[in-house]
Amino acid sequence: MKVILAINAGSSSVKVSVYTSAEYNATPKQIAEAQVSGLTAPPTKLTYTRRGQSVHKNKEVGDGDTRTQDGAFRLLLETLVNDAELTEISSTDDIGIVAHRIVHGGDYDDSQLITADTHHHLEALSDLAPLHNSAALGIVDACIGRLPRAHNVACFDSQFHHTIPPHISTYPIDQNIARSNGLRKYGFHGISYEFIARSVARFLRKDRSQLDIIALHLGSGASACAIRNGKSLDTSMGLTPLAGLPGATRSGSVDPSLVFHYASDVGKLSPASTEHLHISKAEDILNRQAGWSALTGTTDFGTISARDTPERRLAFDLFADRVAAYVGSYFVALSGRVDALVFAGGIGEKATALRADVVGRLACLGFAVDEEANNSRMEENKDDDVVDVSAQSADGGGGSDRKVLVCRTDEQFEMARVCTAKQELWAS
Amino acid sequence: MKVILAINAGSSSVKVSVYTSAEYNATPKQIAEAQVSGLTAPPTKLTYTRRGQSVHKNKEVGDGDTRTQDGAFRLLLETLVNDAELTEISSTDDIGIVAHRIVHGGDYDDSQLITADTHHHLEALSDLAPLHNSAALGIVDACIGRLPRAHNVACFDSQFHHTIPPHISTYPIDQNIARSNGLRKYGFHGISYEFIARSVARFLRKDRSQLDIIALHLGSGASACAIRNGKSLDTSMGLTPLAGLPGATRSGSVDPSLVFHYASDVGKLSPASTEHLHISKAEDILNRQAGWSALTGTTDFGTISARDTPERRLAFDLFADRVAAYVGSYFVALSGRVDALVFAGGIGEKATALRADVVGRLACLGFAVDEEANNSRMEENKDDDVVDVSAQSADGGGGSDRKVLVCRTDEQFEMARVCTAKQELWAS
Repeated sequence: MKVILAINAGSSSVKVSVYTSAEYNATPKQIAEAQVSGLTAPPTKLTYTRRGQSVHKNKEVGDGDTRTQDGAFRLLLETLVNDAELTEISSTDDIGIVAHRIVHGGDYDDSQLITADTHHHLEALSDLAPLHNSAALGIVDACIGRLPRAHNVACFDSQFHHTIPPHISTYPIDQNIARSNGLRKYGFHGISYEFIARSVARFLRKDRSQLDIIALHLGSGASACAIRNGKSLDTSMGLTPLAGLPGATRSGSVDPSLVFHYASDVGKLSPASTEHLHISKAEDILNRQAGWSALTGTTDFGTISARDTPERRLAFDLFADRVAAYVGSYFVALSGRVDALVFAGGIGEKATALRADVVGRLACLGFAVDEEANNSRMEENKDDDVVDVSAQSADGGGGSDRKVLVCRTDEQFEMARVCTAKQELWAS
Repeated sequence: MKVILAINAGSSSVKVSVYTSAEYNATPKQIAEAQVSGLTAPPTKLTYTRRGQSVHKNKEVGDGDTRTQDGAFRLLLETLVNDAELTEISSTDDIGIVAHRIVHGGDYDDSQLITADTHHHLEALSDLAPLHNSAALGIVDACIGRLPRAHNVACFDSQFHHTIPPHISTYPIDQNIARSNGLRKYGFHGISYEFIARSVARFLRKDRSQLDIIALHLGSGASACAIRNGKSLDTSMGLTPLAGLPGATRSGSVDPSLVFHYASDVGKLSPASTEHLHISKAEDILNRQAGWSALTGTTDFGTISARDTPERRLAFDLFADRVAAYVGSYFVALSGRVDALVFAGGIGEKATALRADVVGRLACLGFAVDEEANNSRMEENKDDDVVDVSAQSADGGGGSDRKVLVCRTDEQFEMARVCTAKQELWAS
């Protein structure tokens, strides 16, 4: 038996999910989950759940030290080690494997055991995605220092998309510069799409290699993915997670010249930059000062879904329109062979009004939701990770076998699963 | 009878088409066409055709003076006035109306008679689109100076798109800055889309207000437009013509952060800037150093269509994929009610291989081309501005009434037509 930590570190929170796995390729079993949040907006708070039972919920833990990634991670380790009832971890030496979610994996097409050599490569990737990789790399360093006996595994959000063909991943720019600077579509949310593809194939009783779906991971970051034969064919994010759909604070795709008309000196470093984190003003504006919060003042899509002000109505319609547009373009990319449209992510799971609105726009492609199922199914079915919310299509024709599904995606589980499937970690 | 000049001024060429119109709302009749090209790549050359008869073809006229917009325009006027057989123009005073193609019209939703007041507004628009408006404004000034008795009319490429609803035209960014800086989707190629909508409605014997089509204007600049009830619902270009599809030297939509990873100092002024023309390096890179010429070394899509090298194959597939993606998304925007898919522009008219490839990707939406018709129709039908290249769809079902059309769009004619429909110009 090994203990696996799956860590998801963002700029304002660090989340650790704890799994055990008996052997190579065994399904990981979650035993605990802990999160420190509010790193950038104090007070810092700890939430801790052991075997499905809440131990701490938003407990204030704010002193200066926990407000860094390393400080937050130390607190999370202490919480696990000091919990007498979590018998699987009595000291940090009991932690065998740590899986790290790293957003930008560059050319990596698979998860990587972190060694001195890969660590160097990971640092180089930060130049491509300073906003997105630096928090996770801070935790990797913390783990190497605090858990010297554990194996560290990097799971990349981009790796699922290495199958995107060149005519889709290429930007029509100078190809010498594109090659030397690594400028192409990478795509993200891949850990989630891997989970979705696996779960939906099982749900539809199809072989993964036969699975053709359009998947939507809609959360504070949002993307769409065309999956053909179980593999990524296209996705809406690009060189960085900025491209494609808007998010809570992210503009998504806008005219590439827009930011030069937004403010002067957008090429200069943002005041948000640090010694290690170099961000242009433009990237700061488009990643952190845009999205539906710029339209409505809230990052909470649930509030926006009420559509009770003109601004919320606008933000809702804008998002629904752009999501539906991607489904239309991916329907074409998949030559109309689409087993299911899959909603996932916080908004994909919870925003019933958005699902109804988006699928309403897609009636012409043969998709339809059952109103009652759409309003209740995910809440009722707490044990299934996929539920069917489709209606029989009105025309009763070929469209009716196109399902609309909701998937409770679980990136932490997926990272633990990747570790159980890494043979070299289980040889001894 | 009035003589109307329709002028299309680019950075490297100035084209004048000469029409006569007997009265208000009469169809303009072309009597001559003249073009000076090579302004930025000498030798400068003059081509002149009178009543369909070639008078000069690429005649070298290169002295320093003709290499400016004003110099080129003076040469064009001299050519018209000095041609004894062009009896309609014996002096510049015979020119009654001059129509100017202006790319960016900001908030203008209709063509404008240019007065001291509108001229001021037009200059302000140049800040939003320095790369695209400045050549035309140079010609407006030349006309005011050289043709004091003529009325000048500004026809905007953006005006056709004023019907795009706010949830589609809004960028999810700070709305105070968006409003004060005029940052929204405007869309372009509207003079062409106006011609296409009118011609296709007539061809399909439909009332314009009932026309639902997806139109593709594919040339060295390329865009797509969803037209519902005869009006623009969405289009692929945005704040500037950079967004959307790639062009000969234009990247189209790329990750908005890409250019910051392409070169340093992209926010600084480009060396291509002049006293009157302020262009950031980023805008210069993405508008002039990208597109299919960056992939293949040629701006000629005909050469690329041969697909005889890996680079040409890549550029062709990349373009076809992105065009088909827009058709998929606009099919959804139009709720599947699409009378026709219309190809127009230099590439849309001539690139039979591209049409066949794109429509092949759209079989799942009920579109199909007849191979023979697609290869020959536009060449054979020199007198019709619209030809049908559709095949009966294979499934014989509802898809078979979705036509694929090719339209020989004519922006110069459309501008002259706008002038004949402007009542105030015909009152006397």
